Amino acid sequence: MTQLFPRTPKLSGTDVEACRSELLDYFHATFDRYESLFEILVGDDAYLRKPISLRHPLIFYFGHTATFFINKLLLAGLITERLDPRLESMFAVGVDEMSWDDLDDTRYDWPGVAEVRAYRSKVRAVVDGVIRTHPLSLPIGWKDPFWAILMGIEHERIHLETSSVLMRQHGLEYVRPHPAWTPCRQSGPAPDNALVDIPAGRVRLGRNLDDPIYGWDNEYGRHEADVPAFRAARHLVSNGEFLAFVEAGGYADDSLWDEEGLGWKRYARAEHPTFWIADGQGWKLRLITEEVTMPWNWPVETNCLEARAFCRWKARETGLPVRLPTEDEWHRLYDHVGLGDVPPDIPAGANLHLDHWASSCPVDTFAHGELFDVVGNVWQWCETPTYPFDGFEVHPIYDDFTTPTFDDRHNLIKGGSWISTGNESRHASRYAFRRHFFQHAGFRYIVSDAPVVNPASAYETDALLSQYAEFHYGDGAFGVPNFPKTLAEIAIDAQRQYGNGRFARALDLGCATGRASFELARAFEEVIGIDFSARFIQAGARLAETGVLRYTLPDEGELVSYHERRLDALGLAATAQRVAFWQGDACNLKDVFTGFDLILAANLIDRLYSPRRFLNDVAHRLTPGGLLVLASPYTWLEEHTRREEWIGGFKKDGESWTTLDGLKALLGASFDLVLGPQAVPFVIRETRRKHQHTLSELTIWRLRG
Amino acid sequence: MTQLFPRTPKLSGTDVEACRSELLDYFHATFDRYESLFEILVGDDAYLRKPISLRHPLIFYFGHTATFFINKLLLAGLITERLDPRLESMFAVGVDEMSWDDLDDTRYDWPGVAEVRAYRSKVRAVVDGVIRTHPLSLPIGWKDPFWAILMGIEHERIHLETSSVLMRQHGLEYVRPHPAWTPCRQSGPAPDNALVDIPAGRVRLGRNLDDPIYGWDNEYGRHEADVPAFRAARHLVSNGEFLAFVEAGGYADDSLWDEEGLGWKRYARAEHPTFWIADGQGWKLRLITEEVTMPWNWPVETNCLEARAFCRWKARETGLPVRLPTEDEWHRLYDHVGLGDVPPDIPAGANLHLDHWASSCPVDTFAHGELFDVVGNVWQWCETPTYPFDGFEVHPIYDDFTTPTFDDRHNLIKGGSWISTGNESRHASRYAFRRHFFQHAGFRYIVSDAPVVNPASAYETDALLSQYAEFHYGDGAFGVPNFPKTLAEIAIDAQRQYGNGRFARALDLGCATGRASFELARAFEEVIGIDFSARFIQAGARLAETGVLRYTLPDEGELVSYHERRLDALGLAATAQRVAFWQGDACNLKDVFTGFDLILAANLIDRLYSPRRFLNDVAHRLTPGGLLVLASPYTWLEEHTRREEWIGGFKKDGESWTTLDGLKALLGASFDLVLGPQAVPFVIRETRRKHQHTLSELTIWRLRG
Repeated sequence: MTQLFPRTPKLSGTDVEACRSELLDYFHATFDRYESLFEILVGDDAYLRKPISLRHPLIFYFGHTATFFINKLLLAGLITERLDPRLESMFAVGVDEMSWDDLDDTRYDWPGVAEVRAYRSKVRAVVDGVIRTHPLSLPIGWKDPFWAILMGIEHERIHLETSSVLMRQHGLEYVRPHPAWTPCRQSGPAPDNALVDIPAGRVRLGRNLDDPIYGWDNEYGRHEADVPAFRAARHLVSNGEFLAFVEAGGYADDSLWDEEGLGWKRYARAEHPTFWIADGQGWKLRLITEEVTMPWNWPVETNCLEARAFCRWKARETGLPVRLPTEDEWHRLYDHVGLGDVPPDIPAGANLHLDHWASSCPVDTFAHGELFDVVGNVWQWCETPTYPFDGFEVHPIYDDFTTPTFDDRHNLIKGGSWISTGNESRHASRYAFRRHFFQHAGFRYIVSDAPVVNPASAYETDALLSQYAEFHYGDGAFGVPNFPKTLAEIAIDAQRQYGNGRFARALDLGCATGRASFELARAFEEVIGIDFSARFIQAGARLAETGVLRYTLPDEGELVSYHERRLDALGLAATAQRVAFWQGDACNLKDVFTGFDLILAANLIDRLYSPRRFLNDVAHRLTPGGLLVLASPYTWLEEHTRREEWIGGFKKDGESWTTLDGLKALLGASFDLVLGPQAVPFVIRETRRKHQHTLSELTIWRLRG
Repeated sequence: MTQLFPRTPKLSGTDVEACRSELLDYFHATFDRYESLFEILVGDDAYLRKPISLRHPLIFYFGHTATFFINKLLLAGLITERLDPRLESMFAVGVDEMSWDDLDDTRYDWPGVAEVRAYRSKVRAVVDGVIRTHPLSLPIGWKDPFWAILMGIEHERIHLETSSVLMRQHGLEYVRPHPAWTPCRQSGPAPDNALVDIPAGRVRLGRNLDDPIYGWDNEYGRHEADVPAFRAARHLVSNGEFLAFVEAGGYADDSLWDEEGLGWKRYARAEHPTFWIADGQGWKLRLITEEVTMPWNWPVETNCLEARAFCRWKARETGLPVRLPTEDEWHRLYDHVGLGDVPPDIPAGANLHLDHWASSCPVDTFAHGELFDVVGNVWQWCETPTYPFDGFEVHPIYDDFTTPTFDDRHNLIKGGSWISTGNESRHASRYAFRRHFFQHAGFRYIVSDAPVVNPASAYETDALLSQYAEFHYGDGAFGVPNFPKTLAEIAIDAQRQYGNGRFARALDLGCATGRASFELARAFEEVIGIDFSARFIQAGARLAETGVLRYTLPDEGELVSYHERRLDALGLAATAQRVAFWQGDACNLKDVFTGFDLILAANLIDRLYSPRRFLNDVAHRLTPGGLLVLASPYTWLEEHTRREEWIGGFKKDGESWTTLDGLKALLGASFDLVLGPQAVPFVIRETRRKHQHTLSELTIWRLRG
């Protein structure tokens, strides 16, 4: 073996110059290796013709990784000037996340290869200069400007892999063999696969921010799970094992495919794995620079949809619950066989990190305990769409690396392939692709009765819902205390002081996203939250169930920020089991909602179509001596409440008739006003800079009797 | 003479029981006298038939003054319960301010006369009890609950007069003579009128709140004026003098009438004064209970439109500048002849306060210096539409007594009539009616070259304009300092510290209602305020011209509050002459707007259709080294700025591109950023409780060169 391709460096220690030197080496080796990959291409056309219609031509990727350095170094403040605004605009945005049914027809006037090569040299010099000269202190943390250097290098390593996939999809006339990119020459019949018992166990995923190794934002946070026992295939599915599915008519049998798979299969007219080539009577396999006689004992490469279809077929054939593993199950395999990450100075015990070949190898080459290829050879599709760990935070200078994939349409791949290096090779990394995409990726099936439960991934982006989520659970502004929390506290105090002293049941009417419901449940044994909006109560219910709520907020124009709120962080974890959310109409509430010791209606009455109907109806829902807690800014608007339904805020018989007058008139027969009116302020954030700042008038009424 | 009808009492002193007793007397005498007036009516039909289509029938007015007591006593907290909610709803709102072209067709199911009489008795007992027993301390000020008692009594005295006018317009079959309402029997030929010289002089109008006599809100505040010398008719215009106008075809000659007068004349088909009755060859005059042979030496009674037409005719006949007096000129007459208010215990030296007759009397009966009837006999129409004095405040429990008349359509009447009593009889009182309305009102003409200048009366009610007026000149909220003032102060400091140090000219672009323009003019010799909205700059220009701005603000629902803001109170009186306001488009500014040492653009750029055009154009409008002061919350909205015109707030080439990035890119070639970015907060009030609370990002840029 020649020298090992450098591993992603430790960013801690005390020797700054040694770290600088290692970074320099890591950078140049990566930049070199990337350029060496492009030496495979034959002639300018190879750069300019698209290998597949879904992606840019390779000239883009040749320039893109260099421009990415410039962009991130600018954002980190490591440099202050662009090198070439024209090229850098052209090379800024890829099309990696494009759907197969959403083609990009933009025409680009790409520069020549020599021009891009010259541009890359200038970028190399700039990055080299920054690494050599910019003040550096250890450890390099996630907020350190040097993090951007690592970000650029690891980003280029990702493109080293994805560009190699594109080259594999290019016409053979555009590529040539290259001594630095020699494939494995070992091949033979596929070994028989077998199922290995994996005992139950707990997995702990997620890294701490002080971990001294570079990581992408989605690797940080916490996730723990108990994984029930299951059985796992000893080997990755080989071309030979997959052939049985092809020959059994798996691609033609629609019953084996889910809806998404059927859509893709029709579009792609797929009849076999994409790198397979039907050659007369036999099959060949396309590698990067050549086609070879089918190596039946190499891992098959498929997208996630094909892998799932195979599992369904296998399940039908065997009568076993065959499926892809979840991310947790993959980690259970990893833990079970006792693997570790690639060692720094000896070759990996896996077909990983370019330590062995520029291709896959037989699936029985690298044993990991009772299994083979737990890491390396090809990536392994999981059933799990990628999702944020608890405590996830977006990295400020790369806020669209991860967040666009939190859409339940990007599935995780684990383990890395023969060309996965640096961060990619690490078991903590979490890459995800659209399920129809191809990488150097295959799969291992497992047999398990445990249902697949996918953690919630999506950030709420509905503007109003996010606004309310922030209003209820967010940071607040202008030093104004959290409004639903304050109201709940006042209500609980009042129940002790003025109410009937019972804390059995409370109703939070117009609960929106539910903060006051949880807060009331600190004192009440049972709290019902009711809102007219099903979306709002779903947010509350999701929070009660999962303990977490994620949403984006508008910052400025189209720019957004990402937020995660947790019941436990608010000291409300224990309240969740005492809260239930229902959809309902405060003006026409079901009879079952009765027997409450306290009813809170916050910012509700001026949004009802008939506040009178609500106020006339509310007394019989309270226990004797129970409290009705009202708070409202009395912002009467025709769009919510027709003028004739307003209970105040107008001249009545010539005199000013306030909403408080209306409340007294409507409630006076059954209630005594025991507290208020007093103003309780609240703030609702509209953008990073713009807020509504309002005073809600609080009154507390005790039911007589 | 029988006992004098009691005068409006002094509300100061030390003897509480004496005051209570005087109030009791004042109340019962008024209540009695009002009921005695209604004894004129014959039969229930007299109560239920409308005398004129523009008003309710008299049954309403019979009940109304009683209900008014209940309403105001409730608002003042002197009582807590209604007496009869049904009657009190029916009797609450009159139709006094109705336009002649806007008839009220509501049908009412009026109660019987006996029922209303019984209701009045109950009200009398309640008010009597309050006066006798409610804690009372002296003096009784405008905020004292007892003020509501006075309000009720004076209100009934107004209706004593206006009801007598309605009876005068009723069918003769509905009225009968009454010993308490005996008219004057003296009549004869009209005296020749003559002009009396009135020397120039200063008048001071407006009362202080500590004046120990009840007044309506519009009497308080300050107004001073220098009145040039003029000549005034010795007598009020008599029926005899007016006959010449009628016989000259004055009613048929449209050239003598203004547009409003023509409209009324066509509607009313008026051919002579409304109380004149053409009787074969001669004329009779309708009094309250009878028609009499025309008393030619009594004052003619007209509306304001007829009076003005007479003056135009008189001017044409004489070649003199004949017109009605202004309110100031009427006060000059009053001061000149050295009159005082009605004495407490001897009859008035005027046909006033019911001290003499239940009708007018000859215009040469009561001499006041060289003039006659400066007060009393009939009210005298003025040219002046009623308006608020400086410092005017609305009385909180009667906010629609005055404010609806601040519309330039209600003209002041001065001096009182034979039935004007209590507050009505006082020279400080300020009653105003629509110009087509009839009261016991006539006029005195004057001869003056001085143009009539009517003070601004209207309250701005446009929601957005009022919102900005309050934003610029109002009280603020949440302790946030005034925004345009703060910006101007920062700008002035920056001009000293970073700018070229010149303070010759500043531009306030997007000035809205102009506060920052005035504030900049504390330091700059000349400030131009430019806004796209002509309405906004009119508000600023009006403030510069008159020093005052009045507007209403939404409080809750339809309820509003009234606000007056003054340049002098803000210490800005001296700046007004250095400020000029222009309408203009910041994206397409006229070339003349150049040579500025400082340009402020506050909350502007995110409201422009092309901020780029403004920013590219702004440099050449500054003097070398001049400052551009930008502040904006960057609230980009398609409704103001099409997406492609935003200068930031989006992803550009894959990276977040903030508005500040956009500003740097657009301004960097010509400007240096010398201050900021820093956040400057502002608050815009939407209702009494709801506000926008926003952080505007301030940056200051110095033009190079």
